[in-house]
Amino acid sequence: MPHRTQQQRRNGTGVQTVVQHRPRRAHEPEKVAAAIRGALDSGVPALLQKLISSYHPMDIALAMRDLNREQREAVFELLSPAASGIVLEEVDDDVTVELAEATEEGELAEIIDTMPPDVGADVMNLLDQEQVHRILEHIPDEESDEIEDLARYAPDTAGGIMTSEVIFAPMDLTARDVISHIRTRQIPPESLLYIYVVDDERRLRGAIDMADLVLARPDQPLPDFMTADVISVTADTDQEQAAKIVDQYDLSALPVVDDTGRLVGQVTVDDIIDAIQEEHTEDLARMAGTSPRDVLSASSMQVAALRLPWLAICFGGTLVSAMVIKSFTELLTAFVQLAAFIPVIAATSGNAGLQSAAIMVRSLSLGHQQQAKVGRVVMRQLGAALVMATIVGVVAGIAGHLIMGAPQMGLVVAIGMFFAVTWGTTMGAVVPILFDRVGIDPAVASGPLVSTINDVVSLLVYLSLGSVLLRTWVP
Amino acid sequence: MPHRTQQQRRNGTGVQTVVQHRPRRAHEPEKVAAAIRGALDSGVPALLQKLISSYHPMDIALAMRDLNREQREAVFELLSPAASGIVLEEVDDDVTVELAEATEEGELAEIIDTMPPDVGADVMNLLDQEQVHRILEHIPDEESDEIEDLARYAPDTAGGIMTSEVIFAPMDLTARDVISHIRTRQIPPESLLYIYVVDDERRLRGAIDMADLVLARPDQPLPDFMTADVISVTADTDQEQAAKIVDQYDLSALPVVDDTGRLVGQVTVDDIIDAIQEEHTEDLARMAGTSPRDVLSASSMQVAALRLPWLAICFGGTLVSAMVIKSFTELLTAFVQLAAFIPVIAATSGNAGLQSAAIMVRSLSLGHQQQAKVGRVVMRQLGAALVMATIVGVVAGIAGHLIMGAPQMGLVVAIGMFFAVTWGTTMGAVVPILFDRVGIDPAVASGPLVSTINDVVSLLVYLSLGSVLLRTWVP
Repeated sequence: MPHRTQQQRRNGTGVQTVVQHRPRRAHEPEKVAAAIRGALDSGVPALLQKLISSYHPMDIALAMRDLNREQREAVFELLSPAASGIVLEEVDDDVTVELAEATEEGELAEIIDTMPPDVGADVMNLLDQEQVHRILEHIPDEESDEIEDLARYAPDTAGGIMTSEVIFAPMDLTARDVISHIRTRQIPPESLLYIYVVDDERRLRGAIDMADLVLARPDQPLPDFMTADVISVTADTDQEQAAKIVDQYDLSALPVVDDTGRLVGQVTVDDIIDAIQEEHTEDLARMAGTSPRDVLSASSMQVAALRLPWLAICFGGTLVSAMVIKSFTELLTAFVQLAAFIPVIAATSGNAGLQSAAIMVRSLSLGHQQQAKVGRVVMRQLGAALVMATIVGVVAGIAGHLIMGAPQMGLVVAIGMFFAVTWGTTMGAVVPILFDRVGIDPAVASGPLVSTINDVVSLLVYLSLGSVLLRTWVP
Repeated sequence: MPHRTQQQRRNGTGVQTVVQHRPRRAHEPEKVAAAIRGALDSGVPALLQKLISSYHPMDIALAMRDLNREQREAVFELLSPAASGIVLEEVDDDVTVELAEATEEGELAEIIDTMPPDVGADVMNLLDQEQVHRILEHIPDEESDEIEDLARYAPDTAGGIMTSEVIFAPMDLTARDVISHIRTRQIPPESLLYIYVVDDERRLRGAIDMADLVLARPDQPLPDFMTADVISVTADTDQEQAAKIVDQYDLSALPVVDDTGRLVGQVTVDDIIDAIQEEHTEDLARMAGTSPRDVLSASSMQVAALRLPWLAICFGGTLVSAMVIKSFTELLTAFVQLAAFIPVIAATSGNAGLQSAAIMVRSLSLGHQQQAKVGRVVMRQLGAALVMATIVGVVAGIAGHLIMGAPQMGLVVAIGMFFAVTWGTTMGAVVPILFDRVGIDPAVASGPLVSTINDVVSLLVYLSLGSVLLRTWVP
């Protein structure tokens, strides 16, 4: 019933009437890979062919991770064009390129022909220009134009994730007309999410889902049973914004229009789930000071290359801390015990900032925070900061007194800690908002960068306090 | 076309035939709230009624955040039962409770009757037991049984997020039979995602989507055009696992069966998107050492209460750091410059750990990491650690030499830093996997907890090194 299963059924083994006794569960990729390796080792091609056609193409795509290049290519050769398309779409980008390079252009064109145009455009974007040109020569003009059109949109916009495969109908048709149209045009069931109703200029006026169509009387005109109140976005809408709308209104697909309101495509809910996962990966990776590509990277060197710039920036920041501490050498020589609380101050300030920052990043990406509310949210975080800072400050002061054996030292730690928590929380709350306003991903602001700033400022205050108070009181 | 819009259309203003000239865009909640406040101030009830019926119930739910309690209740009273149901489902939990308390039980029962049973069960779970009993008395037995059944499943399982509203048909029917069944039983279009085909014992044998039904010949028996190869889960499957399957196979709904394979419900894709968002909020909040409720908390005191336990645990950890440093008082008195690099060592180790941990948490929640691959992933992170540690160590050593003015000190910093990055990265990679294996959310392990351990261990190594090397070389 998922559209991919149907695609497989239509293009693959024909209508299945053999019914399994137990409902099917998802296959584990390792087991699929092991079975494939076994069949390859057996040297009986028919066995491998039979095995491969018994799996969902998605299972094969996942198993590809556990096969080597030679094995992958042997498997890929045996797939039907439709199954090849699903595998090409789902494997890691470098494997897509590798498999495409091993395949003859005519065959590749046939595979891309089976894909929705948006997926075809995504795959083509991975290949080199010359190969793309050779492939496009094998594809009918109409479809290759569509693929080229889709490749124009930025990948993180509604246009970039939409498919241009939409079914639309003029307003003067009836339910019977539409059903006979989709029957005679042999439109595949996976494209049949909604029938969009448009006016003479293809401007979106309504939408009809398949259930509406099943329940309508054959002679009912479309405007009688369509949903007129259709929410749409333009092609340049950010994918995160499109995902918010789909989530908020529980849509199954979101029509995409151009500036004049003409229907140009639709974003389906599976693309939205992919977009949400992608945004999540981005948020987490940026908060940790690395790149979303880190999740998928193949080699240690690549991982190191992605992470080093951030480690370096933060290292630079902590060198400033080191310089701050060094400038207090005289103080620390006189009161060496103060050094014991350097990591306590730095870490607590960093942790308080991380808490605020994570919550702000999440709130911003869930869209809870509208412009008008920013002030209120900051006030709430500031209030929490004061409560936490007072409690942590008092406890730290007592601990400081006990560990360092002097009430004056305890007081320095208490005030230093109060400041560290207040400052850390406030920075964690404010910086993501500022970054969001000027168009930088707030998650970038929320990891090591804020921690480093918090470290430097909190240590500066702590040691300055120590300088002033201890010199005055402990002559 | 989204099922909610249809619900509104059916239960609200009747079939709309007035077609707007420009496609509709999502309303901004602040503007909706401002308009509602204006209508309330005008004192003309008809104006408010008219305004409210012009909005999507989802818009009203979001606007509720910007209204005060009195305004919210005034708006809620004017909604149709179906719109009330959507608003009750979508507002924050405390507002749901508040609105339910202000509503008479008979009316509440009517509202809950319009909700899918799973949503009804979720709302009932928020109310106190006595009120629930009084409401259930007003609901027909069959439906109240269903709600009580659903309330039994843990909220983060497939059973907890599924709806028991499924349409199923025995295998010996034809397309015509099914269409006439859904017509005569007046099944609302939003329930019509799939028709599940079952055997005599209600065991799941296949699925038919609406497009299949539109395209089938009226006399075609169901097994002829159903998808037999249906993926299903059991009710106790974790919602994260269900989300993975829906994402992986691009499903629109996932049937849920009991241990014997009998169909008990389905998880729809909008519930899956909610589950994905919820899991991600959990991951981010736990990584930052706070609770998912922090995102929604109303007051500063609540935020402080959620965060303090974690700050306290980490504070306890840094006190151990303080004790470590204190035990090196003699060393620091002799070589006070070493103190300057305490935050550099601590922060870099923490940052390296955060990078690994975030990537592990994300990989685990995307399901990329199967048991068999854990070893390979750890090796990749370890490899990256060695590369980064070497580079950062050399740079830090040079900086240490320049800032502290002694090559021996530079060497201590270089080796200390090499260890800090290697250790931090390894802990960040390994701890989430260990936690995942013993059934603790890996995100819990990945924030301040790991940072704190990294701080203590890295400082211990740095200062011990200083002790040994400097005492030997600088007599």
